[in-house]
Amino acid sequence: MNFGSDNVVGASPIVMDALARANQGAAAGYGNDTIAARVTDRLKAVFERDLSVFLVTTGTAANALSLAALAPPWGSVLCHVEAHVNQDECGAPEFFSGGAKLVGLPGLCGKLTPDVVAAHLAEASHAPPPHAVKPAALTLTQATEVGTVYKPSEIATLADLAHSHGLAVHMDGARFANALVRLGVSPAELTWKAGVDILSFGATKNGCLAAEAIVVFDPARADHLAERRKRSGHLLSKGRFLSAQLDAYLADDHWLALARHANAMADRLAGGLAARGIRLGLPVEGNEIFAVLPTGLHATLKDAGFVYYEWPTASLPPEAAPHAGEVVVRLVTSFATTEAEVDALLGHVARAS
Amino acid sequence: MNFGSDNVVGASPIVMDALARANQGAAAGYGNDTIAARVTDRLKAVFERDLSVFLVTTGTAANALSLAALAPPWGSVLCHVEAHVNQDECGAPEFFSGGAKLVGLPGLCGKLTPDVVAAHLAEASHAPPPHAVKPAALTLTQATEVGTVYKPSEIATLADLAHSHGLAVHMDGARFANALVRLGVSPAELTWKAGVDILSFGATKNGCLAAEAIVVFDPARADHLAERRKRSGHLLSKGRFLSAQLDAYLADDHWLALARHANAMADRLAGGLAARGIRLGLPVEGNEIFAVLPTGLHATLKDAGFVYYEWPTASLPPEAAPHAGEVVVRLVTSFATTEAEVDALLGHVARAS
Amino acid sequence: MNFGSDNVVGASPIVMDALARANQGAAAGYGNDTIAARVTDRLKAVFERDLSVFLVTTGTAANALSLAALAPPWGSVLCHVEAHVNQDECGAPEFFSGGAKLVGLPGLCGKLTPDVVAAHLAEASHAPPPHAVKPAALTLTQATEVGTVYKPSEIATLADLAHSHGLAVHMDGARFANALVRLGVSPAELTWKAGVDILSFGATKNGCLAAEAIVVFDPARADHLAERRKRSGHLLSKGRFLSAQLDAYLADDHWLALARHANAMADRLAGGLAARGIRLGLPVEGNEIFAVLPTGLHATLKDAGFVYYEWPTASLPPEAAPHAGEVVVRLVTSFATTEAEVDALLGHVARAS
Amino acid sequence: MNFGSDNVVGASPIVMDALARANQGAAAGYGNDTIAARVTDRLKAVFERDLSVFLVTTGTAANALSLAALAPPWGSVLCHVEAHVNQDECGAPEFFSGGAKLVGLPGLCGKLTPDVVAAHLAEASHAPPPHAVKPAALTLTQATEVGTVYKPSEIATLADLAHSHGLAVHMDGARFANALVRLGVSPAELTWKAGVDILSFGATKNGCLAAEAIVVFDPARADHLAERRKRSGHLLSKGRFLSAQLDAYLADDHWLALARHANAMADRLAGGLAARGIRLGLPVEGNEIFAVLPTGLHATLKDAGFVYYEWPTASLPPEAAPHAGEVVVRLVTSFATTEAEVDALLGHVARAS
Repeated sequence: MNFGSDNVVGASPIVMDALARANQGAAAGYGNDTIAARVTDRLKAVFERDLSVFLVTTGTAANALSLAALAPPWGSVLCHVEAHVNQDECGAPEFFSGGAKLVGLPGLCGKLTPDVVAAHLAEASHAPPPHAVKPAALTLTQATEVGTVYKPSEIATLADLAHSHGLAVHMDGARFANALVRLGVSPAELTWKAGVDILSFGATKNGCLAAEAIVVFDPARADHLAERRKRSGHLLSKGRFLSAQLDAYLADDHWLALARHANAMADRLAGGLAARGIRLGLPVEGNEIFAVLPTGLHATLKDAGFVYYEWPTASLPPEAAPHAGEVVVRLVTSFATTEAEVDALLGHVARAS
Repeated sequence: MNFGSDNVVGASPIVMDALARANQGAAAGYGNDTIAARVTDRLKAVFERDLSVFLVTTGTAANALSLAALAPPWGSVLCHVEAHVNQDECGAPEFFSGGAKLVGLPGLCGKLTPDVVAAHLAEASHAPPPHAVKPAALTLTQATEVGTVYKPSEIATLADLAHSHGLAVHMDGARFANALVRLGVSPAELTWKAGVDILSFGATKNGCLAAEAIVVFDPARADHLAERRKRSGHLLSKGRFLSAQLDAYLADDHWLALARHANAMADRLAGGLAARGIRLGLPVEGNEIFAVLPTGLHATLKDAGFVYYEWPTASLPPEAAPHAGEVVVRLVTSFATTEAEVDALLGHVARAS
Repeated sequence: MNFGSDNVVGASPIVMDALARANQGAAAGYGNDTIAARVTDRLKAVFERDLSVFLVTTGTAANALSLAALAPPWGSVLCHVEAHVNQDECGAPEFFSGGAKLVGLPGLCGKLTPDVVAAHLAEASHAPPPHAVKPAALTLTQATEVGTVYKPSEIATLADLAHSHGLAVHMDGARFANALVRLGVSPAELTWKAGVDILSFGATKNGCLAAEAIVVFDPARADHLAERRKRSGHLLSKGRFLSAQLDAYLADDHWLALARHANAMADRLAGGLAARGIRLGLPVEGNEIFAVLPTGLHATLKDAGFVYYEWPTASLPPEAAPHAGEVVVRLVTSFATTEAEVDALLGHVARAS
Repeated sequence: MNFGSDNVVGASPIVMDALARANQGAAAGYGNDTIAARVTDRLKAVFERDLSVFLVTTGTAANALSLAALAPPWGSVLCHVEAHVNQDECGAPEFFSGGAKLVGLPGLCGKLTPDVVAAHLAEASHAPPPHAVKPAALTLTQATEVGTVYKPSEIATLADLAHSHGLAVHMDGARFANALVRLGVSPAELTWKAGVDILSFGATKNGCLAAEAIVVFDPARADHLAERRKRSGHLLSKGRFLSAQLDAYLADDHWLALARHANAMADRLAGGLAARGIRLGLPVEGNEIFAVLPTGLHATLKDAGFVYYEWPTASLPPEAAPHAGEVVVRLVTSFATTEAEVDALLGHVARAS
């Protein structure tokens, strides 16, 4: 059973069926299909405002295109040091932006705090142009790399700070839905109302095959994203296959249902672990669990065929740090995780304790 | 009825079914799924040799990644002036390569000839480094932008010329299958045996949803394509959805059957047009027809709802050039084009004559 | 004796003396020295308007920075196919711009003509974004690579055409002074009054050691040139050594005197060659002579130690093309060329005839 | 009197005279002059081995070209967080390398330590390619941004660590001469014998106008630096003016004499400050002094016209941190600093105490 990533599962059957249904007749290529227009309308409804949408197949593309739109080559992008854009995209933001500098800032629980951001901005304000790069964008990951979430008020504080210094605000929402349903706020409250300018609206992890939407809340900032997307090879010719995924994903709040299930499975798993005396390194606010396992239990679970990863992170609060004989692991649930899978793992834990 | 592009149709039902079937259970992400390994094996069998494979979703990505692997930023890429890489990819090769220069050379029927290439190489040999960029790669489009094909002997002559000057050879095979079945040679004969180093093996136009394979015949040239693909956002997390398409596409020679049908429909259409006195501007060697229509007939067909494009091209032989009152149009057939659709168009032509 | 290039001579003694004089005491670094401010004032006076100035050490840097300021990565730059930016800068414009595409257009006598530019713009207007790059800038070389010059009216026609299609206009003025004094117009008439937006104001070839000024007539277009210059390593710390050169170069019309001398030597050489029956391939409008030499004479001159280069060019009018037994050579005079040097070469020609 | 930077002074008279002397007759352009060959020979003698040399006008160019030669776009460059390449070059390394990632690591006294580097390398080794960038180069600044120096043994330890992980080693030697004469070792011992692969051999700060040499100890690593230099606009046409500076700089150990003087003035100043009770924040190992001034004294000195900068730095050992009412300032001496200037400043300090 696989708790390695929300990437290891396939697509929601509803999304897959929609894809198959979209495979009929001729349709305009390159994003000009009628389903794409409907996706834009759905996103406008979801976010309760006008916006521009650019569909792509990967989160890396969504993030890198977004950041390139916000930061010039001589700009910097402030991010959490463990952010996906900084650690796991092989320099995609640098590539797409023409060499902007990512500034990785520390923060417990995977979250940036106003004091750390403010300190960096203060320091940068002492470096006269054109010698230093200029802070141009702040990117927040929602949910974070370690499964925690930013509350709207936290986002607003950080976004206000960024805006007041001339930075734009991007949100990497690879697990946006998981954060959203956990917080119980509206998509608008969690994004533009809190100051987010561009959102990488993730859908792949939460039930699509390969579909992400760059959502630009201020259409003026969308300038040239069409050229950037084409030029980076991310404009699909048979675009309907991208739009059809998102269409089904958004219809009837399917995306919210998928995320609620993933989160519920995370809660079931986290609760079960805690009940069996396993320490959780971080609060479970999305669909990721960071558990501190005794190495013996870890070995037992691996032997039993459970897939998940050791996940060293500096985001762990000091009190949660592993002791000798312990290891920090990440367990991820998804829309497809079953109660039986969770309980199977918990059963092994119980037996091993 | 839509003859606008082979992009306007969906995917082959066999490919779509395979995609749906692949949507079961957990699978390793990022191209490490078992289907991906099978695709590589299939391509080795198809091309009768060892090779490296990198799957991506678009032809632009396949081409730009391939050319970036072959040409340094201070290199040039020789191509036909009307090549897709030069005209229709918004500078993707320049972006991916870090600013290599595409040198568009002229050639009738969309094809480069040894004399034109040799003349450019001779001229370039007089420009001492490091003042000029250095010719680094030659790219050939198969079938060409205007539906003609290079014979293996033509490729070999051009590739020998390129190799003897230190250039690598890339083939943009967005319509590789159409050329292949037309020529009746083996995939090996049409590529590496003729000197092709890297092939953009197109599958989207010929029946996939969004799937192309970068096929590197000399694995030594594949260095860092993994990093380049990731860094450009083209490594799918749920990679099975990419590999599943190509798996079904290649199995049981499905891809060849699809291309044969598309070509047959092109022949039926071209033959029917010629029989009705319509001049063909270029030989029909793949699935594209360049016809010289009287403007009256053009208007009639448009009014009747047929979709296709006017297509000005300098590749037309002088004797085929349109006269006053004529327009050059491109008609494209696909695996999904039906005889009825072809005949419907021909019927309108007959009635309008 | 060396007629190989205006680069082979040193600096004007007046410029060198000024440089030595500038070597006193402390001065603010990074272009903030008082001499730099004076250079800007001098250029404002020369061009009779407000403007922004960015000093660099090479023409390649001036051109590449200028074009990067005018063309986005997804833009194209129209230039003469033989332009220095296209042929002799190892892809610098592509590098600085992040991969913009240089479109080399043909033209006799090294000059672009409105019909060729208009034809390209018309063709480009049919390629819908974002598939094709967008024409963003036109660059003219003054004097051209083959020593001819654009008249203000010719510039104005081309610039109007460019501006009406949304392109900005750059002038590569590596030999601006030579063209200017030949035409007998004002610097303003030859640039912004004719529609030039940014000028690479060359000074190195005409008497400086290594000094070029990017002159931005519309300061709004100068946005971020400071960052681009720094980021490309072209902001000198001891900036006074750059500004001191240009200060002396511009003072007392020294630059004009230098160019007049170079041109006069070119006239003396060209006149002498013609008088001795040597065919000139192109009109001598700056300080470059393209002569068609019998190969025997060519060998004689080389044996005698004269330095100059064979210079194959497609810019030659058909009637001027070399016959069998002839070779096209380029002879360049400079501010430092003496009458004695010219006459020495002419003497050899006379004796050899 | 100006202690703001070693950039605010002009050039050594000996260098300036050589430049004027070089201004005679014709010379081959683009680095092919005879003086350039002599400079290479001199550097071979200085470093006691074969090597390749590329001259440029700025330290930013030297650093960025060097790092681009060592790190691919998908690589990372480890540096001290306060390194010039990371903080003060507006992203030049990112630009020249095509988007490599600079990883700024902390370290007291401006110096990297093996434990910090090893920890980062260990962390990076857990990130499987191609998801993360790959550590490709380590760059050390000698003397550091805060005027301290690495001993040969310290360099060797760091270089061994780097090499054993596949990283190349670059040294930013903007103040190389100052470090060298302080340590009393040979140039070879301080560079390639300790594991440095490429050195930015600085000369501008220490007495040239604008001249730096990229010294590549392993010529195999110099591949394509010629193209990179040209393409970035850093190949001077009248190259003799660059080579002449370095020729005079190196002749007769002039460069060492210049550095010895600058360091002696730094010692005089540092000693005088300490004698007057001023705390030094960092050891004075080159020509930079970091002093902790009472704000009153600071104001007095500024009023008296002394030029120098407040210089907040995290490199200060904790015990040296400024208290309330204190400010950290940087004072820089140069080859041109006089004892009188130093004593004038000390006199003001004495009177203010």
